[in-house]
Parts: sequence; structure tokens; C-alpha cells
Amino acid sequence: MFERYIVTPDRPFDLREIDSGFTEKYKSKKDVEGEFRNLRKKICELQDVLYAEGKRRVLIILQGMDTAGKDGTIKHVFKEVHLQGIKVVSFKKPTEEELAHDFLWRVHKHVPADGEVAIFNRSHYEDVLIVRVHRLVSERIWRKRYEHIRNFEKMLFDEGTIILKFYLHISKDEQKKRLLERLNNPRKRWKLHIEDVKERKYWDEYINAYNDAISETSTIYAPWFVIPSDKKWFRNYLVAKIIVEKLKSLNMQYPEPEKGLENLKID
Amino acid sequence: MFERYIVTPDRPFDLREIDSGFTEKYKSKKDVEGEFRNLRKKICELQDVLYAEGKRRVLIILQGMDTAGKDGTIKHVFKEVHLQGIKVVSFKKPTEEELAHDFLWRVHKHVPADGEVAIFNRSHYEDVLIVRVHRLVSERIWRKRYEHIRNFEKMLFDEGTIILKFYLHISKDEQKKRLLERLNNPRKRWKLHIEDVKERKYWDEYINAYNDAISETSTIYAPWFVIPSDKKWFRNYLVAKIIVEKLKSLNMQYPEPEKGLENLKID
Repeated sequence: MFERYIVTPDRPFDLREIDSGFTEKYKSKKDVEGEFRNLRKKICELQDVLYAEGKRRVLIILQGMDTAGKDGTIKHVFKEVHLQGIKVVSFKKPTEEELAHDFLWRVHKHVPADGEVAIFNRSHYEDVLIVRVHRLVSERIWRKRYEHIRNFEKMLFDEGTIILKFYLHISKDEQKKRLLERLNNPRKRWKLHIEDVKERKYWDEYINAYNDAISETSTIYAPWFVIPSDKKWFRNYLVAKIIVEKLKSLNMQYPEPEKGLENLKID
Repeated sequence: MFERYIVTPDRPFDLREIDSGFTEKYKSKKDVEGEFRNLRKKICELQDVLYAEGKRRVLIILQGMDTAGKDGTIKHVFKEVHLQGIKVVSFKKPTEEELAHDFLWRVHKHVPADGEVAIFNRSHYEDVLIVRVHRLVSERIWRKRYEHIRNFEKMLFDEGTIILKFYLHISKDEQKKRLLERLNNPRKRWKLHIEDVKERKYWDEYINAYNDAISETSTIYAPWFVIPSDKKWFRNYLVAKIIVEKLKSLNMQYPEPEKGLENLKID
């Protein structure tokens, strides 16, 4: 169903060949608005069973260039869900203590428990992206990490975690538009950092790093979805749709009532 | 403004004298529905500034008897907020590792960071409640904990945490009604545990334990609010109103834009 968006491990892959402005048959926000609202409600219902059932763990990973819409996706797609049983973990610049450990140490702590959904806003993938682009460790180190990531995610999967990874794909022009919007809108200006703008000169290196990271780590148990994200409404709609389909396929059930309730007296 | 609900440390205090069915001048849900929706939106706006500003930490503690509505309060009062920067921490039966430490160890890990809101669903107060009622530690130990709690919360406050503590106050009859509702509604029955029903025979001991815990630890920097909770709509409305007033009083501001943005070029 979402084959078009899933990265297949053994096929050649280049983000440059994927249209970040793609919106299927839809022309504008209006065309998906109604369905998006339903999907959002459905996510809320499914998360409610997930939490009640307390058996599965769901890990959602969001990656993308600056302004690609990681925050916005979280805000809109999960607008309806209850706070209980779901958490967002934002991975920023690692602390000294984190750097003093292997790169998976700080993420492992935050993987979801039974009945939980964890949304990673950035993740261990930064350790083969920014770390590679800015040469923070040698190639000898980061190149081995693809395998470490595959093994780590396989272990999580085998132990009961559903993993969905989304790359929010925007064009360099779209990023420029969004940065200018922040610059020129006084209410958004505080979100703009000069550092972010400077990162633009590494755009091609980032794309190369993403190409490798995504194709090296897209697996059957933890697939990468490339989400065309120039149109925010399409991005939200597609992410929501994929999550709903995945959760529905789990056929989750509310737990059975405890035995012995038939004869229970409440005074 | 909320004086009626705040527990004053030096005055005699007994939950038995507080009407759990109180609803101010309001007769039914209809009377507060509109305002409640506005309060909920306001919480969303205020949490957005709080997160952007990244300076204050907010800790909300919910306590109450079984079925008092801790889960329901979280679900309804925070329905509008974004997931980012807010977390619910549910404290269940402590693990072996947790029991091998002092009683504040497991809660300290989860206190909010700058810009965060943490909602504790149960908390370190269980260590002077269930622990006392079921004699899990000796009186010599739990009696000292009031002081430890005051000191711990004072430290959090001095270091920049706003603390709000809510006791959701229901009557024993109301609890019976709610337990019966769970028993008789097939969709809710899985939530009912025989163990919870058995706890009812300790009702008076719990009230005594709550009386002491609340009056011993209600302070200017971390006050206890007793929320009449027999009417769920009034409980939600009042908790939301107190949170909004508190957050508004902080006069939070979106951060200033970074310096140097005037001359920034985005290519």
C-alpha cells in the first residue's frame, strides 16, 4: 500500500530522484482535511487500546533537514492523543556523559515499554549524519554504525517493538522559503538560528549521508518511509495514514476482565 | 482566588469536613463547558510559551483514592496540549531496584527540566499513604518522610520548579458508584481489579493518612489543593482554572530573536 514510499534495501536509492513536492492525486489541503481529521481520531483510539492492552511497544523515528517539519508533524498528527502512554524524546547535542558512552547508550534508555509509544525527534541516526558531515568521528567509526543500528533495531523488534522511521523530505528551495518565513515573521523569528542557516552549505553532504544511512538501515522489521514534505498538509496526512494502517494491522484488543468479578460485592 | 481549596499549613484540616460534591455556583456540566474549553486552549498556549522560553519547570502532582479521576483529569485537562515538552509519569508498585533506594530516588529522576511540564500520576506521596496503611515500613520511618518531602520540594522550588499538588476528593459512596459502573459496563470491566475493591475496607485509614500527608506538606512553595471531585466536570474545570491562573502569573515570554539576524543572507 505504501510501497512507493518505502525504501527497499537492495535497490539503488537517491533522495535527489524523489519529488519532495509530490502529493498523490490531491491538489490542496482541502482535499485531505476530512480524512486527516478521521485519521487523527483513529490514532487516538488505537493508542488507547495499545495502552490498555499493554503488550506492544511502538517506536516512531522522525528525521529530516532543519525546517523539514519534525515538530510540526508531532504537533498535528498526534493532536488528539492522550498524554498517558506516549512520549516525545528530543535528541539534542549530546552531553559530556552521553559522549563518554557508545552512541546507542542515550537512545536505548528511552525506547518504549509495553503499551507505550515513543516518538524520537531526531535519534541515533544523527550519529551517521551530522557526525559524518562535520567529521566528529572518523569514517572507520561511523561506517560500522550502520550495522550496529541494524542489529540494535533487530533486537528491539525481536523483543516486541514496532518500528516506523520517517524521513521528511523537503527540497533546498523549500527550506529557503521556510527560513525566510521565520526571518520575516516577528512571531517566528526567535526560532531562527544563524547556525541553522550556515548548515545549508553542507546540503549535498547531508543528502549523501542520508542516502547511505537510509539505504543501509531500511529493513523489513524497521523500514524507512520517505515522506514528500514540501506540502505540510500532505506530509501530515501521509504520516498519519501510515501509522494508522500499521497500528490497525496489529489487531489489538482491550484486555479480558479479571476472573472472579462475577461474584464480587462492592459495599 | 482559590483560597477555599488551598490547604493552609497551620490550620486544623480534615478531609471529612470538605464536601466532595461541591460545585460552586454551577449546577451542571453545561454551566462550565464553554469556559472549560477556553481554559483548555489557554493551557495549550501557555505550555507553548513555557516550552519556547525554556526557563521554568512545572511539576503537577495528582493524588486521590482509586477512581478519583487521576487518569480522567490528565485526559481532559491536557487534551489540547502538544506532546513536546510535557510528560506524564505514572508511579506504580516500585521495582526491586527502586525499593533498594531511598523513597525519593525514583521520583527525582523524572522531575521536569527547563521548559518542561511533568505530570505525576501518583508520586512520592504513596510512601506516606499506601506504605503507611499497609505497614510496609515502620512509623519511625514514614513519619520522618513529611520533613524529607518538604525539604525535597523546597529544593526543587528554589532551583526553579513551580509545584502544584492536587488531591482529587471523592466520597466513599461516589467510589462505590464508579466501581459498580466499571463492573456493569462490559467496555469498562477490564479496568476493575478485585484488589482495588478490597482496598475500600481501608478507606478510613487512607483518609487519616491523607489528612496527615496533606497538612504536613502543604507549603507556600508547594501548596495542596483539595479538589471536590464527585462531579467530574467540576473537577476538570477547577484543575484547569488553577493551572491557567498559575501559569499566567509567571508572565512568560517568547525568547528574543538571536542577534545578528538583521544582516543574515539565506541563499
